Amino acid sequence: MPTLSDLGQLPKRIVLGRAVRSDRLGESLLPKRYALPIFASDPLSSVAYATQEILIVLTLAGTAFLYLAPWLAVGVVLLLITVVLSYRQVVHAYPSGGGDYEVAMKNHGQFAGLTVASALLVDYVLTVAVSVSAGTDNIISAFPSLDEHRVLIAVGLVSLLAAANLRGVRESGRAFAAPTYLFIAGIGILIVTGLIRWFVTDGGLVAETSQYSVTPEPGYENLAGLALLLFALRAFASGCTALTGVEAIANGVPAFRAPKSRNAATTLALMGGIAAAMFAGVTALALLADVKYVEHPCDLVGFADCETEPQRTVIAQLAAATFGGDTSLGFFYIQAATALVLILAANTAFNGFPLLGSVLAQDRFMPRQLHTRGDKLVFSNGILLLAGFAVLLIVAFDADVNRLIQLYIIGVFTSFSIGQWGMVRHWNREMQSTADPAERRRMRRSQIINTLGGTLTTIVLVIIVITKFTHGAWLVIVSMPVLFVLMRAINRHYSYVSEQLVPDTDARTLPSKVHAVVLVSKVHKPTLRALAFARATRPDELTALTVNVDDAETRGLQADWERFDIPVPLTVLESPYREITRPVVDFVKNIRRGSPRELVVVFVPQYVVGHWWENLLHNQSALRLRARLQFQPGVMITTVPWQLASSVGRDDDGRGGPAPGDLRRGLTDDSDAVPYG
Amino acid sequence: MPTLSDLGQLPKRIVLGRAVRSDRLGESLLPKRYALPIFASDPLSSVAYATQEILIVLTLAGTAFLYLAPWLAVGVVLLLITVVLSYRQVVHAYPSGGGDYEVAMKNHGQFAGLTVASALLVDYVLTVAVSVSAGTDNIISAFPSLDEHRVLIAVGLVSLLAAANLRGVRESGRAFAAPTYLFIAGIGILIVTGLIRWFVTDGGLVAETSQYSVTPEPGYENLAGLALLLFALRAFASGCTALTGVEAIANGVPAFRAPKSRNAATTLALMGGIAAAMFAGVTALALLADVKYVEHPCDLVGFADCETEPQRTVIAQLAAATFGGDTSLGFFYIQAATALVLILAANTAFNGFPLLGSVLAQDRFMPRQLHTRGDKLVFSNGILLLAGFAVLLIVAFDADVNRLIQLYIIGVFTSFSIGQWGMVRHWNREMQSTADPAERRRMRRSQIINTLGGTLTTIVLVIIVITKFTHGAWLVIVSMPVLFVLMRAINRHYSYVSEQLVPDTDARTLPSKVHAVVLVSKVHKPTLRALAFARATRPDELTALTVNVDDAETRGLQADWERFDIPVPLTVLESPYREITRPVVDFVKNIRRGSPRELVVVFVPQYVVGHWWENLLHNQSALRLRARLQFQPGVMITTVPWQLASSVGRDDDGRGGPAPGDLRRGLTDDSDAVPYG
Repeated sequence: MPTLSDLGQLPKRIVLGRAVRSDRLGESLLPKRYALPIFASDPLSSVAYATQEILIVLTLAGTAFLYLAPWLAVGVVLLLITVVLSYRQVVHAYPSGGGDYEVAMKNHGQFAGLTVASALLVDYVLTVAVSVSAGTDNIISAFPSLDEHRVLIAVGLVSLLAAANLRGVRESGRAFAAPTYLFIAGIGILIVTGLIRWFVTDGGLVAETSQYSVTPEPGYENLAGLALLLFALRAFASGCTALTGVEAIANGVPAFRAPKSRNAATTLALMGGIAAAMFAGVTALALLADVKYVEHPCDLVGFADCETEPQRTVIAQLAAATFGGDTSLGFFYIQAATALVLILAANTAFNGFPLLGSVLAQDRFMPRQLHTRGDKLVFSNGILLLAGFAVLLIVAFDADVNRLIQLYIIGVFTSFSIGQWGMVRHWNREMQSTADPAERRRMRRSQIINTLGGTLTTIVLVIIVITKFTHGAWLVIVSMPVLFVLMRAINRHYSYVSEQLVPDTDARTLPSKVHAVVLVSKVHKPTLRALAFARATRPDELTALTVNVDDAETRGLQADWERFDIPVPLTVLESPYREITRPVVDFVKNIRRGSPRELVVVFVPQYVVGHWWENLLHNQSALRLRARLQFQPGVMITTVPWQLASSVGRDDDGRGGPAPGDLRRGLTDDSDAVPYG
Repeated sequence: MPTLSDLGQLPKRIVLGRAVRSDRLGESLLPKRYALPIFASDPLSSVAYATQEILIVLTLAGTAFLYLAPWLAVGVVLLLITVVLSYRQVVHAYPSGGGDYEVAMKNHGQFAGLTVASALLVDYVLTVAVSVSAGTDNIISAFPSLDEHRVLIAVGLVSLLAAANLRGVRESGRAFAAPTYLFIAGIGILIVTGLIRWFVTDGGLVAETSQYSVTPEPGYENLAGLALLLFALRAFASGCTALTGVEAIANGVPAFRAPKSRNAATTLALMGGIAAAMFAGVTALALLADVKYVEHPCDLVGFADCETEPQRTVIAQLAAATFGGDTSLGFFYIQAATALVLILAANTAFNGFPLLGSVLAQDRFMPRQLHTRGDKLVFSNGILLLAGFAVLLIVAFDADVNRLIQLYIIGVFTSFSIGQWGMVRHWNREMQSTADPAERRRMRRSQIINTLGGTLTTIVLVIIVITKFTHGAWLVIVSMPVLFVLMRAINRHYSYVSEQLVPDTDARTLPSKVHAVVLVSKVHKPTLRALAFARATRPDELTALTVNVDDAETRGLQADWERFDIPVPLTVLESPYREITRPVVDFVKNIRRGSPRELVVVFVPQYVVGHWWENLLHNQSALRLRARLQFQPGVMITTVPWQLASSVGRDDDGRGGPAPGDLRRGLTDDSDAVPYG
């Protein structure tokens, strides 16, 4: 497979780091202080757009309903806490890192499991698209002149991430821990400073958009009754984007130090707390500073150049208002940290995707080779697929966070709710098998939490589907079943095959004798080697076989055969039609027909070339022959490779560096090791 | 190669006829009366546009210079006769059918040979493009309403030809003989009837365009001196299109009955005579009937709807004038015959192309597999390539014969002149080796003929290059070197390889002992078969090898191993990185390092699947492993195929039916045999 190995070169040549042996894994597993930032970048980063999304919906009706914002925020925070608590149960019950998929599979069976799987796969794509777009937004907020290049920047960032992961970049280490902490710190300072400012100067915290009023969108002028309820729910659904990524830790338990589950649970709680605080703080500050953020900039009455100028993100507006304008150091710091953490969040998808892929492959829902590691090529395809779809979405939706968000949370909440209900059933089963009342009480408590989580997330899922369907969510709702069906088909194929392979006696019967057939075209090194090797296997019969497609050539061959007095007689097959494959196949068929229990070994000398194009000039008949012979039972095809000079140094070592998702699987890499613990 | 065999299905399924065994070839070789039409359709068909091309150029200057036409025609006829005479020498001297390529190769060496080869390859493409476009023209002349679909029709015809040849249609037989005879007869009758008409009604033969006058193109108003000379030469060059295809017979000698050369020479003379007569007659008639045919229809003063209406071809105008209008039976007959013979001419390219390819492959200037027959796939690629480029040209030049012609004859005359000069040198060598004066006299005569031919064709070539370069010929002049370089590169590669393969002693030394390694993933049929087969080869050592990528799975495997009490010990390789390829390769390397003279045979159980996509789900690691192992010297890879249910019936029989060019190689097919001779 020249192309294969050729491609193989690329990742190999530019690879960095070396994977660590399993027996040394212990040392390099993640302590909490590294696990938190690495797993939390995704959930925490959503703080950067959750508040904004609530405002966007509310301001559709002008400023009249902004009073709903705090209540919605409280709702989101409560939901967040419930979900975190629920997942703490998951990490205890399923420490293997299968996450919702495993839970659903084990407790609700295939259907639920695959639904979760498809949901997650779609989700990874959207995590990349949304996070990168939001990151771009915050970069543009710092440098508005870049606005016209929005899509280009976003696509560029995705490409960058893809390239980095193709190179086999590792998640662990300070490089990945830093941005998250910088972000947490930054937002923390922002909130505190902001609040102080507001109290001290009482109300002196003013966002640049505070002086604008908002013209309601047509149809939203005077909402009431059911319309108002739906409106509020829609805003709430948008706010729920704050929960995206919470499941990350549940999928990464294997990466934690022992006691894995305990540490994971603690980290989860920590993460939940921080996320809640940040979200609440930012939302509060946004309302105090009277930030406006609307779907269509020109609804901002007073925003003169709404056509040309971009809206600043809520974070950017707050930073500017708090730290003294959009030229202050604080402002740039916040923007940088926010953009960075968002890009990091996107990167987690590149790690989660192959991880899920390998779990799915193990269960035979995806091609088997996704399971075994070290095949750069497979991971590369995964990375390119992920990046490709993300770019597709970004381009299709002009890197517009608000439009992408509509597609985002469906997947998340699908897996949330199915996972939680799975846990409920899990506890039922557990309790049946335990007598100890204390145990049972603990389980009951866990079950109650999961029931609550399941109920809430399901309600939210329904809300999302209702309120977002027409806003683009249908795209996701369509693509999930597609993935579902695909995985089912793959699984059916694999089980269909393995049925065929159940051993029976006849597969073990030894052939009576071995008849070796060596294919000869010329008397040259490859042929002589093939002959020597064939003789070395001491077959019961040995035939040197050539096909006469050109009398002159054949005579020449026979002459050489004499000259080198080769100890094996040369059989010449006539080929009136100047073919090679057919006569050989017929010859083999005849041997088998003569004595069916005889094993025929066909030795095919083959050139090993260095460049893919060389294969166009060689091995064609060898390939064709193998393709034909393999359909004959009782026939083995033995390739006798002859290494041409051009092949030297092409001995491609398939492996190199860490593959994305290794860390989350507990397969970490500690070259340029950070002294953990 | 699933895709390979899958593709293989296609030609196979729709194949017709069966090739005939070489030993029965004699019967089905071509007698002259079949050889003439089959080889002459190309040269004769050019009568359909040669006259027209002369007129197009002359009428650029209005009607003032039409008086040149007869002289130019005479010039063309003389040239035609010389060329035919020269080729009679070729068929006598080189009966193998190598034609100009062989002549140039043998007498001027590689450079000249490859130049001819590239010229011919380009030519085949243009033969298709020009002939089909001309055919379309004549169809449109009969049904002017089709004019708007010109390109579509032409492309459709090319596709039709391609399809027919993919199906493996045979050239021999009445089907292919008829149209040429119908055409010859038709044009003969046309000329005779036309002349009679003209004499009887004195001057009563009037073409529909006779009443039109022609406005000269800017720049051509009053030509004189050198300008006039160049003008005349350009018209002459256009007329030389009458010679295209003359070489066909020289390439088809093997298809003739013995005495091959004699019969070929006679046929050649016959063909030349007929072509000359037809061309002369048509031109004369066209001038008598005062036919006008111009480059831009609207230069015809009086041709009202020149924007919408197409010009009728010269042939069509003559037919209409002779047989009483464009509704007469005679008119439609002529148009049908002309269109048919032109399409047939295009078809000859589909036969000549693979023939040349196989000759080039034999000389190692093209991939080897082009030489051996019966590989439908290879020919298919050739056919598709030819058709593809032809379509490209047709679309690029709107199926405009006049514009395509500009590219056409360069190739033809390149091979003409190089070939003729080759013959001159050939005779020199011959004469040195013969004493017999009679012999020498005959040779001298032949040499004089070839010298004349060489001189004239060279002059014409120069004229063509000068007068046509800016009219599109540059395209050909550019693409020929490209092909040239490509073929050189291929050749260099082949010889570079064969140098490496010169046998030496070490290639023959027998390995000291054989170590068989059977790869095991599970205990299922394929594994058990592989083990059984491996044991049957009675190696000195036998290792069953598995790689532990998943402890649980491996324990399961070991348990099964016990349960089936398999007589071979199972070696488990630890793979900390969850890889398969690398540990195995290292294991093999170690064996070799331990005892370099030991031969390692790696048995790889492999699934044989029926659908290409199944291979995405299987055999990946097997493929990768083979790709890696083949770089290890002293290692043989033995594939133990296990036929999955889906593979049943996929045993694709590569061959079927005749391949294009067989007949010209003397490999004919006589199913539905015509009683030749």
